[in-house]
Amino acid sequence: MTETTAGDLEALVRRVRVMEDKWQILELLSAYGPAVDSGSADATAEIWTEDGEYDVDSGRLCGRGELRAMVGSAPHQGFITEGSAHMLSLPHVEVDGDRAVAIGHTQLVLKVPGTTADFQVARITANRWELVRTDGRWRVERRVARLLDGRSEARALLGGVVPPAG
Amino acid sequence: MTETTAGDLEALVRRVRVMEDKWQILELLSAYGPAVDSGSADATAEIWTEDGEYDVDSGRLCGRGELRAMVGSAPHQGFITEGSAHMLSLPHVEVDGDRAVAIGHTQLVLKVPGTTADFQVARITANRWELVRTDGRWRVERRVARLLDGRSEARALLGGVVPPAG
Amino acid sequence: MTETTAGDLEALVRRVRVMEDKWQILELLSAYGPAVDSGSADATAEIWTEDGEYDVDSGRLCGRGELRAMVGSAPHQGFITEGSAHMLSLPHVEVDGDRAVAIGHTQLVLKVPGTTADFQVARITANRWELVRTDGRWRVERRVARLLDGRSEARALLGGVVPPAG
Repeated sequence: MTETTAGDLEALVRRVRVMEDKWQILELLSAYGPAVDSGSADATAEIWTEDGEYDVDSGRLCGRGELRAMVGSAPHQGFITEGSAHMLSLPHVEVDGDRAVAIGHTQLVLKVPGTTADFQVARITANRWELVRTDGRWRVERRVARLLDGRSEARALLGGVVPPAG
Repeated sequence: MTETTAGDLEALVRRVRVMEDKWQILELLSAYGPAVDSGSADATAEIWTEDGEYDVDSGRLCGRGELRAMVGSAPHQGFITEGSAHMLSLPHVEVDGDRAVAIGHTQLVLKVPGTTADFQVARITANRWELVRTDGRWRVERRVARLLDGRSEARALLGGVVPPAG
Repeated sequence: MTETTAGDLEALVRRVRVMEDKWQILELLSAYGPAVDSGSADATAEIWTEDGEYDVDSGRLCGRGELRAMVGSAPHQGFITEGSAHMLSLPHVEVDGDRAVAIGHTQLVLKVPGTTADFQVARITANRWELVRTDGRWRVERRVARLLDGRSEARALLGGVVPPAG
């Protein structure tokens, strides 16, 4: 009966850890839409690091305080009390040690004000999420988001996807 | 050469099993859209437990028989023969032993009747899926779904996302 | 202290490998939207095998050369310089050794030409992705995509989802 060595097991542990990292990252990113659409200011802010940045075409937020304020702001409260969905397309995630990059689309659908149940796509957005592991947890250090209205910088964000080795 | 103990391996097996659970849950939830949009009544019903519940604002279905009947109903058949897509945003999944909760948005896009290829977002929906493992398989025991038209109970469903530990 | 055998470890390695396959497949499919919407012809083509096929209702492309040409074509360049998002719903993935099938919806949202930021859903699409592992990498061998405008062949593609064992 062949015995296994600690080295065999350690190699497998490393592979398991990479997948656990990816799950934690998906869970973090998938929390964003539910957090903002429910108006959960703390849950939204805690997706980022304490001084994390959200650089979006409509404004640049720095730190959890500004993220919480964005959720509580009149425009955002207007969206969610009227009806809003921040939808996430499956992101492309690359992990490199304690850092990771996720690239993908988001989509904002809003109820048309004054209607019972007419909805419109209000935004399609290119996203680059830069993540870092701190104290054993993944957080967003920087999210860059640009409206896909033809501007080249939005396309450039999506172009950061690494193609599989040819 | 250090030998590994059964305890080391068992600890790793537990970590692998948690990820297998998450995959099974994603596979179950990702089957919903294709099942309903293809009119597959059995495949739709089998996503739920035998007496599973689908509590949606437009009606409350109890058990696989009512789920099958929903797929075969005139309104649903009207949707799919006209053209429909039940899209799923990446859900946020929390597993706790033999139970799990998935939270996320769905979106219903329909072809506008009478047009060749004009589409409209007909619904944006907040979802809470309560899952249970029975006989080694994950199933939906209860799905609660509410239209995101500004009603507070829809926002409350999405607010169930657990933020990562601060 | 019980020792673990090579057989115990190998069984676990196999379970880990299945999940690594699923991650690679999700990463491949999630690269498609960012690749086409950024106009990255090479990154798009490399999602497929060298002679891979993309059979879509609007035309049938064979091999990476035709895929690259599609990205560079006037209609596609028109989409992306105006503003476009190819969104992916979470796909349902089944792996069987060195082959896999992924089934799910995609959605194309375009900016309405001549507007500042009005968006419309231009397509909802049923997809069946047939994948193969070659040289240790997963690639798409064939993607079949049909517009969900009521045609039965689009519904049939989605009906290929295998329900969980009853």
